[in-house]
Amino acid sequence: MNNVRAILITIGDELLIGQTIDTNSAWMAQQLNAIGIEVVRRVAVADQKEAIIAALDEESSKASIILMTGGLGPTSDDITKPVLCDYFGGKMVVNERVLEHVKAIFSRRNRPFLESNMKQAEVPDVCDVMFNSMGTAPGMWFEKDGKIYVSMPGVPFEMEYIMTEEVLPRLSTRFVSDAIVHRTLITAGEGESFIAEKIKDFEAALPAYIRLAYLPSPGSVKLRLTGRGADGEKLSVEVEAWHQKFAERLYDITIATEDLPIEAIVGAAFAGKNKTVGLAESCTGGYIAHKFTQVPGSSNYFQGSVVCYSVDVKVSLLGIARELIDDAGVVSEPVAEEMAKRARTVLNADYGLGVTGLLSPDDSYTVSPGTVCIAVANKDKVVSKTFQFYYDRIRNKELAVQYGFLLLWKFLNERI
Amino acid sequence: MNNVRAILITIGDELLIGQTIDTNSAWMAQQLNAIGIEVVRRVAVADQKEAIIAALDEESSKASIILMTGGLGPTSDDITKPVLCDYFGGKMVVNERVLEHVKAIFSRRNRPFLESNMKQAEVPDVCDVMFNSMGTAPGMWFEKDGKIYVSMPGVPFEMEYIMTEEVLPRLSTRFVSDAIVHRTLITAGEGESFIAEKIKDFEAALPAYIRLAYLPSPGSVKLRLTGRGADGEKLSVEVEAWHQKFAERLYDITIATEDLPIEAIVGAAFAGKNKTVGLAESCTGGYIAHKFTQVPGSSNYFQGSVVCYSVDVKVSLLGIARELIDDAGVVSEPVAEEMAKRARTVLNADYGLGVTGLLSPDDSYTVSPGTVCIAVANKDKVVSKTFQFYYDRIRNKELAVQYGFLLLWKFLNERI
Repeated sequence: MNNVRAILITIGDELLIGQTIDTNSAWMAQQLNAIGIEVVRRVAVADQKEAIIAALDEESSKASIILMTGGLGPTSDDITKPVLCDYFGGKMVVNERVLEHVKAIFSRRNRPFLESNMKQAEVPDVCDVMFNSMGTAPGMWFEKDGKIYVSMPGVPFEMEYIMTEEVLPRLSTRFVSDAIVHRTLITAGEGESFIAEKIKDFEAALPAYIRLAYLPSPGSVKLRLTGRGADGEKLSVEVEAWHQKFAERLYDITIATEDLPIEAIVGAAFAGKNKTVGLAESCTGGYIAHKFTQVPGSSNYFQGSVVCYSVDVKVSLLGIARELIDDAGVVSEPVAEEMAKRARTVLNADYGLGVTGLLSPDDSYTVSPGTVCIAVANKDKVVSKTFQFYYDRIRNKELAVQYGFLLLWKFLNERI
Repeated sequence: MNNVRAILITIGDELLIGQTIDTNSAWMAQQLNAIGIEVVRRVAVADQKEAIIAALDEESSKASIILMTGGLGPTSDDITKPVLCDYFGGKMVVNERVLEHVKAIFSRRNRPFLESNMKQAEVPDVCDVMFNSMGTAPGMWFEKDGKIYVSMPGVPFEMEYIMTEEVLPRLSTRFVSDAIVHRTLITAGEGESFIAEKIKDFEAALPAYIRLAYLPSPGSVKLRLTGRGADGEKLSVEVEAWHQKFAERLYDITIATEDLPIEAIVGAAFAGKNKTVGLAESCTGGYIAHKFTQVPGSSNYFQGSVVCYSVDVKVSLLGIARELIDDAGVVSEPVAEEMAKRARTVLNADYGLGVTGLLSPDDSYTVSPGTVCIAVANKDKVVSKTFQFYYDRIRNKELAVQYGFLLLWKFLNERI
């Protein structure tokens, strides 16, 4: 195997005190994998000179590419630029293109250009400057002893811009590495040990250069096949063949044969059947609608949602009988079913989903915390199910959303 | 200073290929900080024996506490447990309590207990087992050469359970360390270099043991003061006093004096004024409603949202005149204003918010992609604003949500 290895170093106190969740690394890893570069470690360090230098020293012995993000802001807590300048033995010089650009940004925003902003246009004279049209801090490309070191801002869309425009093209030209091929299968309804038992013989027969991983989430398990090899095309065919074998064996529980979020799987199912959907969301508070509308093209099948957080709104906007709510209880299958049916009609959709539940303890309810009723309806029938979740309100909401999507998928595909 | 240092090691291929975003580390860091333990590095490594061992060797020279998550599942890709068993020179033994528990979980879920599940009850005989009532994989506590090594599952709520019930109490008892005090201030409407200029004198006067950091996000900058010292109470008072000085100097642009998400800031403002709010969301697709309902107690002020993704729903459910939409365009301030006003009335709320926009290129619209119109109304007046964002649909949606909340906050506090 001939894989080029990269390490990601993220710099910033906010990552070590838990104020920020690192979403950059996942994105960067995906992009690097796509050009055959393997990420072997990720390291987060503080905005401290010694910590940054120690990480550079150590990680450069483990990989040929070191990608850094963070610590490039204009304020004094950000020290990555001067530290790198020192580390690579350069001195700071003003870059005219960056200066023009920073001044233009300030004038467009009607902000005064301050002395401290001048520093934003300074770069070490020992790096290649990579222009950042999305913000003020440029990317920097250093080379030393045959290793590549790249520094980028921590703001996600600035980093993504520099990666896409500069870093990935340069790395692709520079390295010819083994191909990495991932293929994913998404199952629902069975646990990972049950699945492992069912595909035991396949798993044992996999060649060493194709690995299988199980990624469980509530109600669902992803199976990921990862192949590595010199001949990308041959590898793709082979991984694909294994992927198909797994998909056939697990047909009953497979909901998708590629790595998509559940909302995209369900969305594709609606698009494929040319059907529309409308929601009535109580305890999920618009989260299902938000997920549906994250998917490009969702306006072709997603009509809308009535987020009826209060009982009044269930009655006035959805037209659910107050007596039904009083009799059955607001968290009940009859109310969920009415919500699903009314969502269909008021939103003029082929399918309706209704979700009502109690996410966290509240004495004014008769059901136990974590009880969620979910119903799906089309013009011919309605089905409902009651779930009991055991976590906090945030997690219970996530679970309700996940199972809401699964129920919609099963109903639409007549698996229920 | 006398800070106890911890390092977090996350184990799993999914973290290195970008399939999973690491949310555990942020939570763990917050909890550790609260008991005076500083996280100095975070490292992510693959499910590979050599990678795990190298990380243990290296990181244990840098801190006295090593907390690991991940790689404890029942399937063959998860190898953390046998690797640790080897590393600490133990052998695997069945733990009866864990076995009972795993069997009970399987029987509750009506799943057969398989041979491979037996392995889940095995633990190295050289660790303290920490019971996991949330799942099948127990936590493990090892000690070697005066250092502590803890292994926990990667599933967030299982990790959180073991941390809360076992790890944090044990660490608190064991270490008496310097206090760490964080205080945050959230501003809106000015950039970080402008703010830095305005508080330059304060920043220069801060003692060495109190650090200031700037954390920018769209439309908003957080300022975080972090103090470290032996006397926690004295330090709290001092950091608090600085925090107040900053808050006074930046009064005009301060929207919160603690680290809360924007939805909690706006929610608290509604709760404080005893007013309710209702939404009409087009391009934000229920995301604002979802954020509102993430906050406990939001049912006291949040009435609901009409997610009117299609024009038909804007007309039929909100009662907006089709002529207005045809004349002004669906993405326009007049339509946003009508949406805000109608959201108030159909949802019976004191305040209404309307958001309509085009998030990504679509030739059937006359506005440019990234154009978003946001309006807020109460019974007396309505204001609207047009924003132009420049990113992709996901980011533009985030920005629309952020500015929607900011506009609500300003309107409610008569700052607009």
